Amino acid sequence: MAISRGPQAFPRNEYLRRLSLVKSEMADRDISVLVVSDQHNITYLTGYTARSAYVPQALVVAADEEEPVFILRRMDAPAALHQCFMSRDKIIGYPEELIAHPSKDGYDAVVDYLQAAGLEKHGIGIEQYNLSTLTVDKLKRRLASTRFVDCTKMVTWVRLVKSDFEIEVMREAAAISDAAIARAAEVLRPGVREADACAEIASTLIRGVNGKPGTRLEEIVMCTSPRTGTCHIPWSEDILREGSQVNIEVAGSRHGYCAALMRTYSIGTPSDRLRRVHDIQLEGLEAALQAVQPGATCSDVANAFYRTIEGKGLKKESRCGYAQGIGWTEPTASLRDGDLTALKPNMTFHLMLGNWIDEDFGYVISETFRVTPSGVEVLTRAPRQIYVIS
Amino acid sequence: MAISRGPQAFPRNEYLRRLSLVKSEMADRDISVLVVSDQHNITYLTGYTARSAYVPQALVVAADEEEPVFILRRMDAPAALHQCFMSRDKIIGYPEELIAHPSKDGYDAVVDYLQAAGLEKHGIGIEQYNLSTLTVDKLKRRLASTRFVDCTKMVTWVRLVKSDFEIEVMREAAAISDAAIARAAEVLRPGVREADACAEIASTLIRGVNGKPGTRLEEIVMCTSPRTGTCHIPWSEDILREGSQVNIEVAGSRHGYCAALMRTYSIGTPSDRLRRVHDIQLEGLEAALQAVQPGATCSDVANAFYRTIEGKGLKKESRCGYAQGIGWTEPTASLRDGDLTALKPNMTFHLMLGNWIDEDFGYVISETFRVTPSGVEVLTRAPRQIYVIS
Repeated sequence: MAISRGPQAFPRNEYLRRLSLVKSEMADRDISVLVVSDQHNITYLTGYTARSAYVPQALVVAADEEEPVFILRRMDAPAALHQCFMSRDKIIGYPEELIAHPSKDGYDAVVDYLQAAGLEKHGIGIEQYNLSTLTVDKLKRRLASTRFVDCTKMVTWVRLVKSDFEIEVMREAAAISDAAIARAAEVLRPGVREADACAEIASTLIRGVNGKPGTRLEEIVMCTSPRTGTCHIPWSEDILREGSQVNIEVAGSRHGYCAALMRTYSIGTPSDRLRRVHDIQLEGLEAALQAVQPGATCSDVANAFYRTIEGKGLKKESRCGYAQGIGWTEPTASLRDGDLTALKPNMTFHLMLGNWIDEDFGYVISETFRVTPSGVEVLTRAPRQIYVIS
Repeated sequence: MAISRGPQAFPRNEYLRRLSLVKSEMADRDISVLVVSDQHNITYLTGYTARSAYVPQALVVAADEEEPVFILRRMDAPAALHQCFMSRDKIIGYPEELIAHPSKDGYDAVVDYLQAAGLEKHGIGIEQYNLSTLTVDKLKRRLASTRFVDCTKMVTWVRLVKSDFEIEVMREAAAISDAAIARAAEVLRPGVREADACAEIASTLIRGVNGKPGTRLEEIVMCTSPRTGTCHIPWSEDILREGSQVNIEVAGSRHGYCAALMRTYSIGTPSDRLRRVHDIQLEGLEAALQAVQPGATCSDVANAFYRTIEGKGLKKESRCGYAQGIGWTEPTASLRDGDLTALKPNMTFHLMLGNWIDEDFGYVISETFRVTPSGVEVLTRAPRQIYVIS
């Protein structure tokens, strides 16, 4: 029997709006076909969130077709039928024999489709950033007369400004992040194994809040003394102790959209150094948020932070954050010195102020925010404090 | 202060053994330098498991140096110092300004290192499968006189045969998978939201068993009626009901090593169809395991399964599994018709017998096994049953 279409996170018109923005970019680049390989861009344009990107799959957007065509492994076609907004005939499953085949793969099916649909005569955009050189070689060999245009990050840049629908989903994700940070404050205790505390945080990220569960579990970062100078390590097998500091980064997830959040915990009284760093960083955080308004640049926001903390004798070597949405980090606009991307309403960022000061000492705080017509809305709402466990 | 070296999952000699196998492959290919980009290959050769592969990083293995050099984002260098077996001077952090830079990235730091170390005069192996065409273009442009050799999956193939140390870690991972499957049988109940059941499964995967927690949470697949015909969807927001079927795939993880496991649950009495499919698949599973012995091929194992179920009127379109270890699927040997890879002791596979028969009906069962000198050891031990929730 045919699989039913599942509940849709967004109305059809929302996907058509996104596609029309992409088609406009395609026209600017004089291409009438776009092959989208980036899994997050595919989610954006279709609603597909199943985890099948470890094998080749591609979405073909044709300028003169309303709906795109999704070519993926046959095994995963039912998931696409269930999740995507398109009609059934726009989902094409390629044969299982292409999996782990010695010389062919799913991109051979993509080429077959482009040829059968007569699309290979047009200029075709591809996302070279997401394609291995072996795949690009295959495309150029099998479609020798096609004019290929590199459209790396073209769709990703379209994703930068969210719709109100997307903002609402990110608010839901942010509420889940808040709940996970609050749960951490309940379970981080001396004598508790890091893994056991993390199990509770993970559980909260999945259960969600307000009747809205997390729809995926993103990486949980938990860097505990003596590892607070690291930033991307998960929990360890250690037992938490009086005097331990714990840096946590989580991201609630709804329909692929993330809203990340970092907070620092101290089991027992924080050291003077930690207190001082927190006070300075908090001032920097507030200065950065005050700098957010349409027309200001990413660089302005970052420099408001840098200027504030440097005035107090603290430095942060890394950037202050990045555009955020589907799949956590969007690799486009960056809250860094020199990024002159102008802020627009409904852009969303993770203002990521983790500061790894020494090899063995770091401090984290962050917020997820959106740009509003007049300033900023901070989507995450956890108290901006060192969480002291006493 | 300097960060301390953390507890090591494997002794130094184990890493040197792995490196000597890789260096032998390098000699066969007439290269004296290898640039490893695949994050799982980096884990294999160093012990590094932090989640920083979303920005460029590379391990440089030189034939005449005992220890490799790891070049990664400065922010992540402390994690490498903490986790890797190498001495401090083998960890090189590249400047934060290369992150989200408009024209440069971490591979510029890799090129700088190769030049400074005088290694660009040698033949250099690269993993083209893992590199975007933009990166390969950069390497060839900046190192115009270097002879590059594609070593796609060369290290991955070395990973295929595990050491006894690795097998022990996979046994620990398998025990965690067993515990998660057992926990699912306790929490899948009519009236329970899928997400809430999944939160408990996730929690078990992190808490682990026998004092050994999971060290990372891998994707959890939970495909419930009417989605049992899909294979890579996570939990939904639905409430479980009498008559629901639930297909679960989990993988306990220890130090990066996974041991995957699938089981099917029925809330209430299973349908006759489900019972019949289970009985046939179980017979096929046993036939496949009986075919496992050194010298048999991957194809032999797959065909033992196919032959058995086809004799009973059932078909399975997809392959019967894949090599397994660091990062779940190892993209090398595949339990498929025509894969003539000969089994050797201490190869490990996920015998993945998920069978998605119709768009709206599938059944799953699997085991993680290792090849022994005389046959097979099944590492996962959950009962081979439909878990009936009554």
